[in-house]
Amino acid sequence: EQAGLFSSQYGTQYGSTDRICSTHDHQTNSNHNKQNCPTPTADHWVRADQEEEAIRRKLKYFFMSPCDKYHAKGRKPYKLILQLLKIVIVTVQLAFFGISNQVAVTFKEENTMTFKHLFLKDYDQSSDDSLAVYTQQDVYDHMFYTVKKYLTLPEITVGRYAYVYDIGVNGSALSLCQQYYKKGQIDPANDTFNIDPHIVTDCIGVNPLSVPNTQLTSSYKNFTLKFHKLINVTIQFQLKAINIQTIINNEIPDCYTFHITIVMDNKAHSGKVKIWLENQATIRECKDPSVSGHAESYTRVTFDVAVSLVCLLSLLLCGRSLLRGIMLQQEFVQYFKETLDRKVCWADRLEFINGWFILLIISDIFTITGSIIKIGIESKTMSSYDICAILLGTSTLLVWVGVIRYLTFFQKYNILIITLRAALPNVIRFCCCVAVIYLGFCFCGWIVLGPYHVKVK
Amino acid sequence: EQAGLFSSQYGTQYGSTDRICSTHDHQTNSNHNKQNCPTPTADHWVRADQEEEAIRRKLKYFFMSPCDKYHAKGRKPYKLILQLLKIVIVTVQLAFFGISNQVAVTFKEENTMTFKHLFLKDYDQSSDDSLAVYTQQDVYDHMFYTVKKYLTLPEITVGRYAYVYDIGVNGSALSLCQQYYKKGQIDPANDTFNIDPHIVTDCIGVNPLSVPNTQLTSSYKNFTLKFHKLINVTIQFQLKAINIQTIINNEIPDCYTFHITIVMDNKAHSGKVKIWLENQATIRECKDPSVSGHAESYTRVTFDVAVSLVCLLSLLLCGRSLLRGIMLQQEFVQYFKETLDRKVCWADRLEFINGWFILLIISDIFTITGSIIKIGIESKTMSSYDICAILLGTSTLLVWVGVIRYLTFFQKYNILIITLRAALPNVIRFCCCVAVIYLGFCFCGWIVLGPYHVKVK
Amino acid sequence: EQAGLFSSQYGTQYGSTDRICSTHDHQTNSNHNKQNCPTPTADHWVRADQEEEAIRRKLKYFFMSPCDKYHAKGRKPYKLILQLLKIVIVTVQLAFFGISNQVAVTFKEENTMTFKHLFLKDYDQSSDDSLAVYTQQDVYDHMFYTVKKYLTLPEITVGRYAYVYDIGVNGSALSLCQQYYKKGQIDPANDTFNIDPHIVTDCIGVNPLSVPNTQLTSSYKNFTLKFHKLINVTIQFQLKAINIQTIINNEIPDCYTFHITIVMDNKAHSGKVKIWLENQATIRECKDPSVSGHAESYTRVTFDVAVSLVCLLSLLLCGRSLLRGIMLQQEFVQYFKETLDRKVCWADRLEFINGWFILLIISDIFTITGSIIKIGIESKTMSSYDICAILLGTSTLLVWVGVIRYLTFFQKYNILIITLRAALPNVIRFCCCVAVIYLGFCFCGWIVLGPYHVKVK
Amino acid sequence: EQAGLFSSQYGTQYGSTDRICSTHDHQTNSNHNKQNCPTPTADHWVRADQEEEAIRRKLKYFFMSPCDKYHAKGRKPYKLILQLLKIVIVTVQLAFFGISNQVAVTFKEENTMTFKHLFLKDYDQSSDDSLAVYTQQDVYDHMFYTVKKYLTLPEITVGRYAYVYDIGVNGSALSLCQQYYKKGQIDPANDTFNIDPHIVTDCIGVNPLSVPNTQLTSSYKNFTLKFHKLINVTIQFQLKAINIQTIINNEIPDCYTFHITIVMDNKAHSGKVKIWLENQATIRECKDPSVSGHAESYTRVTFDVAVSLVCLLSLLLCGRSLLRGIMLQQEFVQYFKETLDRKVCWADRLEFINGWFILLIISDIFTITGSIIKIGIESKTMSSYDICAILLGTSTLLVWVGVIRYLTFFQKYNILIITLRAALPNVIRFCCCVAVIYLGFCFCGWIVLGPYHVKVK
Repeated sequence: EQAGLFSSQYGTQYGSTDRICSTHDHQTNSNHNKQNCPTPTADHWVRADQEEEAIRRKLKYFFMSPCDKYHAKGRKPYKLILQLLKIVIVTVQLAFFGISNQVAVTFKEENTMTFKHLFLKDYDQSSDDSLAVYTQQDVYDHMFYTVKKYLTLPEITVGRYAYVYDIGVNGSALSLCQQYYKKGQIDPANDTFNIDPHIVTDCIGVNPLSVPNTQLTSSYKNFTLKFHKLINVTIQFQLKAINIQTIINNEIPDCYTFHITIVMDNKAHSGKVKIWLENQATIRECKDPSVSGHAESYTRVTFDVAVSLVCLLSLLLCGRSLLRGIMLQQEFVQYFKETLDRKVCWADRLEFINGWFILLIISDIFTITGSIIKIGIESKTMSSYDICAILLGTSTLLVWVGVIRYLTFFQKYNILIITLRAALPNVIRFCCCVAVIYLGFCFCGWIVLGPYHVKVK
Repeated sequence: EQAGLFSSQYGTQYGSTDRICSTHDHQTNSNHNKQNCPTPTADHWVRADQEEEAIRRKLKYFFMSPCDKYHAKGRKPYKLILQLLKIVIVTVQLAFFGISNQVAVTFKEENTMTFKHLFLKDYDQSSDDSLAVYTQQDVYDHMFYTVKKYLTLPEITVGRYAYVYDIGVNGSALSLCQQYYKKGQIDPANDTFNIDPHIVTDCIGVNPLSVPNTQLTSSYKNFTLKFHKLINVTIQFQLKAINIQTIINNEIPDCYTFHITIVMDNKAHSGKVKIWLENQATIRECKDPSVSGHAESYTRVTFDVAVSLVCLLSLLLCGRSLLRGIMLQQEFVQYFKETLDRKVCWADRLEFINGWFILLIISDIFTITGSIIKIGIESKTMSSYDICAILLGTSTLLVWVGVIRYLTFFQKYNILIITLRAALPNVIRFCCCVAVIYLGFCFCGWIVLGPYHVKVK
Repeated sequence: EQAGLFSSQYGTQYGSTDRICSTHDHQTNSNHNKQNCPTPTADHWVRADQEEEAIRRKLKYFFMSPCDKYHAKGRKPYKLILQLLKIVIVTVQLAFFGISNQVAVTFKEENTMTFKHLFLKDYDQSSDDSLAVYTQQDVYDHMFYTVKKYLTLPEITVGRYAYVYDIGVNGSALSLCQQYYKKGQIDPANDTFNIDPHIVTDCIGVNPLSVPNTQLTSSYKNFTLKFHKLINVTIQFQLKAINIQTIINNEIPDCYTFHITIVMDNKAHSGKVKIWLENQATIRECKDPSVSGHAESYTRVTFDVAVSLVCLLSLLLCGRSLLRGIMLQQEFVQYFKETLDRKVCWADRLEFINGWFILLIISDIFTITGSIIKIGIESKTMSSYDICAILLGTSTLLVWVGVIRYLTFFQKYNILIITLRAALPNVIRFCCCVAVIYLGFCFCGWIVLGPYHVKVK
Repeated sequence: EQAGLFSSQYGTQYGSTDRICSTHDHQTNSNHNKQNCPTPTADHWVRADQEEEAIRRKLKYFFMSPCDKYHAKGRKPYKLILQLLKIVIVTVQLAFFGISNQVAVTFKEENTMTFKHLFLKDYDQSSDDSLAVYTQQDVYDHMFYTVKKYLTLPEITVGRYAYVYDIGVNGSALSLCQQYYKKGQIDPANDTFNIDPHIVTDCIGVNPLSVPNTQLTSSYKNFTLKFHKLINVTIQFQLKAINIQTIINNEIPDCYTFHITIVMDNKAHSGKVKIWLENQATIRECKDPSVSGHAESYTRVTFDVAVSLVCLLSLLLCGRSLLRGIMLQQEFVQYFKETLDRKVCWADRLEFINGWFILLIISDIFTITGSIIKIGIESKTMSSYDICAILLGTSTLLVWVGVIRYLTFFQKYNILIITLRAALPNVIRFCCCVAVIYLGFCFCGWIVLGPYHVKVK
């Protein structure tokens, strides 16, 4: 008689798990049978007065799936249709953003590759991370090669780079520095050493030929390295460039500043000096963008606004449903307290809050925020591609995971999903046991085998 | 009593699924128990008059397997033997075509490889797709290297290539072009730019030394690139060759024209100019083929004709069986309507149309079409290797999949196949659930991680 | 009463499958219940006279496992111990041979590598199979490089090689040949050709400087290639060497003759000339072997003889057991015929022939033959390493597989092995179904995708 | 009644396996039902006198889990908390040691890499193990290159290396040796040879320029190799260095001596001379370590001492528990002997010895020993990194595996673990069968296929 009073939203017909506390003797409802909910006497249920009938009907309707609601009362499943629409437009928006983002990231990556080929001597792409030199002469050669290439950059490069002045030592454009220990008398022959581990940094500045202060241009050739106590040599400078490839996608170009650092690392003092180039790019809006014959495209912005509005509507509807659930819960608790003089346990109270709605609300908030940032990026008043990518990506992930909910409306899928959910705890438990042994082996293997083998590192 | 009136062709003895609508209370017949077929009263079946007996015998015979037919009436399973023969000859034909096709494709691939080694400077096979230059001088060097190699081709090449004249700019043989933006003032130093994104193409023609119009031969050295607004440099020309390797297989050689395009791509304006070579081959019949001492081999053509005839026979026999099924269905529906005054539902009507026959008919049509094209290719009046490959390949795939049908005639295999078919829907359903989550992760991963990692791209 | 009269040797206690024809109503005995064995009336079995009792005891004893025989009659399991001993010594012998064989094969492989580095220009080990040239000059360069290196071999090589004279054209040591079509007028410009596909071979001989006939030494520089109809260029010569590394293992060195062929292949006429080196080695006994201070080691030969004797003993014992089985079968058949007037079906007759004994006999024959060859190799009167390797390897494989038999003597293992054997037919059946579809896809994929992708080839 | 007298520690509630010998008719207790324990008559158990009640309570308490003990008697689970603490601190200690160890191993690896780049001609990192030469001139070139680089080492190297004098031939610093057969007349042309396999070693010493005995410096150029009987050429010398990188981790630098051996191996006499460099490092404490401004860090040593103390405490507690178990066992055996006049079988006696405690004791001993060595390493009086790594690594592995024990205190995990343990024997048995067949194939494959394929070697 009581079974079927109201059904959980997870399995309307098949996995129906009745949650009135008095029915806790059901063995299938294994998650909650450890909670000590009070068990009422059976005669409370015999009088089925008006009020009970009313709340029973309310509950029944509340836990129906959209399809059942349509069959029962003829209410069109507007929210369901809205969600299906959202899946499509959110994915389309993500795809558009993905293409824009790809252009920006590729520009940075390709410039890094160009700098490596231009500024590093004997650079070979296939063994990228193993560039190293072993003799003093080679260290000087690589160092001077880089500076020389920097000075002649405008003549040799295919791209269009501009120097950034007054950022280095003594207002120069390029800083050539060496770091060494304050004192570093090492005498392996006698097994003695006398070291002061404080680090001293010694820099000179170099300016391009175009700058009148010419004494800074050629002085770098006299830069002498203190090999016996050297820690590293760094060459730092900045270059500016404009990513005009975006014109093809009808977007206005961005301005980039590349912070380039070339490091010759002798920290290990093992006779091997590793060399690598780091490139950090910052994106800014260009001043005075002038693209002839370019009709500003409002289409994308319009689409983004549309997405935001759909998500806002979805947010409001889901919020309303969530609120209704909470209100119904209050009413239900009130009824139980007044009529039956019993408390409703927390597990049953949580049943009224639909987890899917919370997921949808989070997804909606992410999409709206992401869309606003995207509009900013497109109108070139913002350039935070990364945050926008994370927001839109996560939101799309959530929306797609939400599709699982719609599959539970089909009987066959519902059985499958309930089965999988029931099997999950045991699988996780087994993984825990394996993980513990695995962790032990990892720690042991890292120490005992690790340093002798490249792959374990 | 009614069970066994006629059996589905899928499982004569073991998976026999009786499909008379009145027997829809069988639980095993799960696919159709949702359809509302009318249920007749049982007494209709009691009078087993002449007509019913006749149609019952017809149905029984129709749904028998070839082996059962042989045992029942002694009818030799000609069609079965024909299909087994077809599997063999279709596979042999495919193997023959595969060898011919391989020769044609290999010739094209090896020529492409040759062109890359001849026309691209510093080409290295192991890093094929990463050829790129980073300095202005290198761009000029690579460009002039290609043109110079083209002009001296007959002296250096091991193969035998002929220039194709009058296809380039100003009736020249080779077109050397650059594309650039109409206006492209980029000033990264001040973060300003003034671009007109309309693309201007600027070409010069180059002619080999053998052509009298010599001014076109050396003028290419004056070709100046506008690096600051350059989009790409393309070198286009055509070469002709003859694939005489086919003589070894007793086939007449084909004539090839190679459309070679070398692209130096600066679209990204990232300081890196990617270089690649594209080679498109068109195959034509040579004029005036003269191979001394070559007796034209009719064997292959004869074999192809034989295959076509076998397939035509199979097509006719399968078509006849299909037609008989439809006619028997009409008769059956008529009988039900007149005698029992009931309609036969669609699920039962479809039982009369054997899916395997449709598969065989499609396969036969593909083989016949493919064989005709193959005869055309062998007699050098056609050269569409690709279409022929798809037709013959698909047809062989279908014929081999059809072998599954013959396995169902064995009792043990039939059980296995029916079991697998029953398990399929649940497996697909599970895959759907996984796919939805996977899709969500893909979209999210592509945007959030994609651009930073080469492998995800 | 009859169950347990005698048990199959496969499952003494657990999988006991009673095989007297009269007990064919047992459902577990599924393999043979289709055979039409005559079923006697039950009363035949009631009179258990003397004769029946005797044959029953004989059968019971025959089908016992060695352990049971020991428990029943106290007969020591000599044969079992012999087999366990055989596993050890056969494996040891194989290991000894493996080490010798490795030395011989390595010597050949390393010499091939040396020849590639010495005779091939620009040879790079990492891209071994892709050495190719694309210009006429390169073909001449590679050809002359090889001949020049051959002529100066004694001065440059680290190894000790001797020329082999009078094996080439005109009694020379090295043959330099080109093969071309008799007629090969190819005119791609006009799409015409005139080919006579008969192949003409044109050779010159080259002799090392040490040979007085000096005109053969330098004439090779005038060798002109007919590129427009060239099929291939081959350089063939022989070198002799002695593998003295075997002295370390106390073995007498072998003499090797290397047949070296360098091929420049233009068969495809695609502008790419592939170059490769083939090296075929023949092993002979050296004349006059003289190793000072080398005491001939008889240990190995002694061991090989011991192995042969053990295997011979095993062969005799297994043969005797097999013979006894056949004799007992005759007796049993005779008894059935005379007493019961019934025939014994073939399935039951085969039960008397123990498959494991056949396996052991084959293994023994292989080991004895292999040991004889091995003794021949060690005393340097034979050099057929390959045959010996196959014989000893296969024999060891069989002996190890035979270990499975001893595992069935343990109760727990017997259950496992019987279970696996029962599951095998269904697994094979499933694999058949998959294989058919897989084959279809393979044929289709090879033709449709194959030529365009390197990996499918 | 008797069931539940005392429970195994492995499954307090769920997998309770009663082990009194008289209850061996339980089918679940499958491990021991083959042992012939005496079965007492049932009436012995009827009289439940005082003594029995006492020992029963003792046993019950002994086999309780820590949680149950807490619930039963309120005893705080100090030992459990101590073990959980141990897991954390042992892992932290291992991580600290891992970082130190990594620095030491990396220093050695990078120096080896440096030596290979400095002393080996044409060394290429990507094809590390295939460096080989094929001509006599190349052997001399590589040999002289190495010696020349050694002599000029201080001028060229980036690191700081010191020569080690008086360790080579004639008190020199570098030994250049060749090994050859005493007699080695090989004549492949006539297939004859005359070899005396005794090995002769011929060495010269080379001294750096700084040493006054200059005649040893340049004489190496006259070193002539006897190629026809050469076995190998070795160059041996030692270099000293100091690993000052450890200053960054606030550790005092170690002194290293590198024993470098360069081998040119002609053992195979196959025309290919393989070249490789071996580097063996020995770590010693430096004399007179002087690091200005370096406050000796006592933190690590303090932590190591703390770890040792915790493990000592754990060792004592576990030892006490183990002892108590043995004492209770004695008492129990005594009781059985006196009261019931029965012996307790070994399987039941072993129940009293908790395997987990033994595991913990071993782990504790390892950690304490390892910690002492670690303190020695940190105070630079020891340098045996390897032993310390093995001790600490193994100990951490054992501690982590011990976590499994704590999981059995949770009901759900206990079921899982008992299930897995029950399935293990059958899995191992199956693996045995597969292993036997696999071994056979391995032996066969090694001999028959092995030498022809690189991967099988």
